Amino acid sequence: MNRMDLYAAMREKKSALCVGLDPDPTKFPKHISRDHKGLVEFCKAIIDVTQEHCVAYKPNLAFFEAFGPAGWDMLAEVMDHIPKHIFTIADAKRGDIGNTSKMYAKAFFEHFDFDAVTVAPYMGEDSVKPFLEFDNKWVILLGLTSNKGSADFQRIATSDGMLYENVLRKSQSWGNADNMMYVVGATHGEELSHVRSLVPDHFFLVPGVGAQGGDAATVIRHGANDMGGVLINASRSILYASDGEDFTSEAEKECLKLNKDMSALFED
Amino acid sequence: MNRMDLYAAMREKKSALCVGLDPDPTKFPKHISRDHKGLVEFCKAIIDVTQEHCVAYKPNLAFFEAFGPAGWDMLAEVMDHIPKHIFTIADAKRGDIGNTSKMYAKAFFEHFDFDAVTVAPYMGEDSVKPFLEFDNKWVILLGLTSNKGSADFQRIATSDGMLYENVLRKSQSWGNADNMMYVVGATHGEELSHVRSLVPDHFFLVPGVGAQGGDAATVIRHGANDMGGVLINASRSILYASDGEDFTSEAEKECLKLNKDMSALFED
Repeated sequence: MNRMDLYAAMREKKSALCVGLDPDPTKFPKHISRDHKGLVEFCKAIIDVTQEHCVAYKPNLAFFEAFGPAGWDMLAEVMDHIPKHIFTIADAKRGDIGNTSKMYAKAFFEHFDFDAVTVAPYMGEDSVKPFLEFDNKWVILLGLTSNKGSADFQRIATSDGMLYENVLRKSQSWGNADNMMYVVGATHGEELSHVRSLVPDHFFLVPGVGAQGGDAATVIRHGANDMGGVLINASRSILYASDGEDFTSEAEKECLKLNKDMSALFED
Repeated sequence: MNRMDLYAAMREKKSALCVGLDPDPTKFPKHISRDHKGLVEFCKAIIDVTQEHCVAYKPNLAFFEAFGPAGWDMLAEVMDHIPKHIFTIADAKRGDIGNTSKMYAKAFFEHFDFDAVTVAPYMGEDSVKPFLEFDNKWVILLGLTSNKGSADFQRIATSDGMLYENVLRKSQSWGNADNMMYVVGATHGEELSHVRSLVPDHFFLVPGVGAQGGDAATVIRHGANDMGGVLINASRSILYASDGEDFTSEAEKECLKLNKDMSALFED
């Protein structure tokens, strides 16, 4: 999917919501089994009830891989259930030397037909470029993450600003706003405005809303640009809105609440 | 496997060799099919002929994942074929927020029973710690990698040395020499001595020998310590030593050559 189509979907749905699929069986409603069958059933139910209210899905690979080889089969079943017109992100945090990144790109873009994959920047340009060689596919590069550990290296002072600022500046030349986005954490609040000044055109994938403490209205205020510019991810606050049989209706309520918080993005 | 047992295996075999399993069907000998069956057959043949000459295997996840869900089944078959007493490394370059890293750790340590997994440091301490909570399991953290892109961020100047030096210094407090190793590229030659001065006790996993241009004798001279201290990885130079029916005997020859280059490590 290209950037125009993504923004068109956002305007149509009045939403910048990305639903993160982090299926943790220990948090499933009690009536859903904690096995292969239950995981797929749970994800399908979440997709059924959220697909009118979101513009992207972000399966978190770790929660599938924890099941071993069967986990990748589950991922295939879940991907098959996501409507083809909705943007999909493999939250995989991959990145390796060139010949290896190329194989990861084949896995996510050719085998699964994801629109995007999250990539870690530590190994530099040649670890990212192979992902950029696929038409209408996206790299979402880690910029500033939402976890406590982002202070350890991302915020380290270099001769030219903090490390994450170097990552944002340098990597913009590797691709463009039509094939790269950045992960920029929402728990850092107004810092988003600063990041937006460094990266005027690219979309940001913003985690940290909901369970991690960020709020969507703040993200829109500081992070949006005139092509939308933000995908706001929520995972746990939607998936585990209730542990009862009403988990789908509660998940839907959470989506509507988040979309309401984003309404400023779609005002004329 | 613990550090004593790893070093004992090294002394017994007079080897610090890690065989990287990066099975690329386009490079297979012509008589081996380029499908699921061929990939497993190829890896098993390599394991059969190298297991007396190496102390570790490092399957590269990307080369399996490029096959989609079937790739993880292939990985399971390959792992089943590796003798239990040989150290195994999931070269997966994972790392994410805590609850997600925990799931990756379950995948590699519980489901597959790997001894170690490679982890990227960009997200900081809380992205690495969950991997350290498993007994007799190891994190192999990216320090200084062997690719050209290592110059982009790893070598960036900070207020306290280069970024990779910060990573090496800070992360040593997260674990210890019995549950952490570091990836330190061999293409950087004498820089290994400097890295060893920063990290006296931990093992280094050294890629870049063979196809990438580093040599094993130099690695031993600059990187070893009194508990061995280095695992030297070679992948392509062993796996694709020949594209004929003699690929196993040529692979074995390459192992013997590499082990000869490492002999200084085992002299009294």
